[in-house]
Amino acid sequence: MDIEDTLLMIPGPVKVAPRVLRALSKPMISHRSGEFGAIYSECCGLLKQFFETRNDVVIMTGSGTLGMDAAVASTIGHEDKIVTISNGKFGERFTEIGERYGQAVPVKFEWGAPYDLDKIEAALEKGAKAVAMVHNETSVGLTNPAKEVGKLAKKHDAVFIVDGISSIGGNEFLTDEWNIDIAITGSQKALAVPPGLAVVSVSPKAEERFLPRSSSYYADMKAHIKSVRKSPPQTPFTPAVPLFFAMQEALHMAAEEGFAARRARTAKQAESVRSAAKALGIELFPTVDANSYYSNTVTAMKMPGGVTDDKLRGGMKKQGVIVSGGQEQLKGKIFRIGTMGVCSSGDILRTIQTLELVLAKEGQLRARGAGVEAASKVLG
Amino acid sequence: MDIEDTLLMIPGPVKVAPRVLRALSKPMISHRSGEFGAIYSECCGLLKQFFETRNDVVIMTGSGTLGMDAAVASTIGHEDKIVTISNGKFGERFTEIGERYGQAVPVKFEWGAPYDLDKIEAALEKGAKAVAMVHNETSVGLTNPAKEVGKLAKKHDAVFIVDGISSIGGNEFLTDEWNIDIAITGSQKALAVPPGLAVVSVSPKAEERFLPRSSSYYADMKAHIKSVRKSPPQTPFTPAVPLFFAMQEALHMAAEEGFAARRARTAKQAESVRSAAKALGIELFPTVDANSYYSNTVTAMKMPGGVTDDKLRGGMKKQGVIVSGGQEQLKGKIFRIGTMGVCSSGDILRTIQTLELVLAKEGQLRARGAGVEAASKVLG
Repeated sequence: MDIEDTLLMIPGPVKVAPRVLRALSKPMISHRSGEFGAIYSECCGLLKQFFETRNDVVIMTGSGTLGMDAAVASTIGHEDKIVTISNGKFGERFTEIGERYGQAVPVKFEWGAPYDLDKIEAALEKGAKAVAMVHNETSVGLTNPAKEVGKLAKKHDAVFIVDGISSIGGNEFLTDEWNIDIAITGSQKALAVPPGLAVVSVSPKAEERFLPRSSSYYADMKAHIKSVRKSPPQTPFTPAVPLFFAMQEALHMAAEEGFAARRARTAKQAESVRSAAKALGIELFPTVDANSYYSNTVTAMKMPGGVTDDKLRGGMKKQGVIVSGGQEQLKGKIFRIGTMGVCSSGDILRTIQTLELVLAKEGQLRARGAGVEAASKVLG
Repeated sequence: MDIEDTLLMIPGPVKVAPRVLRALSKPMISHRSGEFGAIYSECCGLLKQFFETRNDVVIMTGSGTLGMDAAVASTIGHEDKIVTISNGKFGERFTEIGERYGQAVPVKFEWGAPYDLDKIEAALEKGAKAVAMVHNETSVGLTNPAKEVGKLAKKHDAVFIVDGISSIGGNEFLTDEWNIDIAITGSQKALAVPPGLAVVSVSPKAEERFLPRSSSYYADMKAHIKSVRKSPPQTPFTPAVPLFFAMQEALHMAAEEGFAARRARTAKQAESVRSAAKALGIELFPTVDANSYYSNTVTAMKMPGGVTDDKLRGGMKKQGVIVSGGQEQLKGKIFRIGTMGVCSSGDILRTIQTLELVLAKEGQLRARGAGVEAASKVLG
């Protein structure tokens, strides 16, 4: 595989634009300098637009999971309850993190099934300091109803923590309007930066209710907030400087496109993939209802009958296109295509065309070119 | 300040070689792919030579502090004691981390003062699950006696944790010979990679004594070890892919130079800075004795009489050379020059020459060119 000539269509890390890749290569600077502070400060300002928030935003060096960890570890002590909602791998991760630091109260749905809001409210009625959910469940291609859970969190006065890792900047995500106290994203998703940074926004309510001392030393929200408020802004521990250079450049690109325009384009691109799937007779995986939606950043589809994961993804890889398989219990049963960040119409058409080639080879292609045509119609 | 034309002589992040900066700019790859696994695996093999160890090595996405955090959080539960030795900022950080997860037993010396081994043994005699120390105390330019503390740790059967962040690859650091159970380094020091990765080695003894469940979710050594043993090797959470590309390239450079040759060069370079300081009448900061040494990676010097931090470091910055000041209680009292990784003789001579220029401007230069001449003599 020539990584310089491969199309990465997985739901993160996503393709990074050449000008962002080049920004990574600047020489090092001191992380305690005004020069670094200016970059950090500019990134935070632009990220607030991405998050649709007036809350403070911090950038931490680590994966998106570090952001989830910091949210929970800084809020939940040994005796505190946290309602953790799951319908996929990353929701279950919140349960694991909640159990690490306090009393997790899991509200568990089948992977890919919609939330039952009554069950969530029943759990909150028993009292909890916080409730955590995943907005866009990357493992199953489903977008969950953050707005509705936000209303419940407000009603029951719980700190509302939302993993927006594969969502913010791609899906509609209204941090303030939806009462989200702690929102988290990762650099390698809709921001189209390489992985290695977590971004976290914190409401005044969340800040008031932080533990006096986070349960984790490295994942400590209070330390990060204290440092970002310094002049010049800093991080408590040495940050991954090149990823900040890349973040700055990627945010410039997003601002040039327009944050709303990017979300609209991303929505259209996911629709084009769903449309291609329909034309090819491939079933979407998640179950949607009035309160849940097909994801606009990652499309999960059932493996077409008679085709193995190996044949499908291996065959596409041979043609230079990388898509994802299912995780854990969904291994071999679904495959997933990520379309967010700087993904282009050409990238999508090449992906669908490659999928058609593989299906044809396996004798499972209904009508030659039908997928590409359907996608192209949506993309315009 | 033009960051493309500035010489960074701080003790981390250090200057990164252009070929390593260019490696950062490769396109993204999936972190679950064989391609990523091959890079991770090659890095671990070379890092074992850097660490002088046969133990397993893992790479975590985060600062060096994350490595310290993971070592302590994975070993120390609420009731467990950890002896934390300090004679500077980073030793004190081990105390803070120990207090976060369990019972820290601090053995505290003045910043820059040598260890008193009797005091350390007295603390160990009261029983402790672990003992943690900083080999090279970046904040004061002192190298502490890891070999001797390792003997005490073995005698008292404690897990021996050593922060080798500004040491490994620069100073002599014999992980196995010195009985070091958990050794930690950061990418932005002697490895000459940008910041954002922590490297941690783990002995079988340390692994046996890990808590069933780390006290931190993200800083979880067992999760990292489990993932690195998979085929292909992985990380439990999405890693900072570009920094792995850079790590691989930087390790190639170190292997080409030879690991022992790099350490010898680094030692000579620090000696040249000390020699220049002497010739310029600048006093070194730390106190050394039979069991402690001037650091080979960072030289801490007292601020010359009549010169302020602002004048000295500000004046050097105007000439395009960045050196560090003192931290916390040493602010304004000392300044520090980092010489590790791919620092060249030319870099050192330019730094000393710039220092001379600033001293002359402040009327504090004894003999023009004396520092450059002394450094040059050592560098050969």
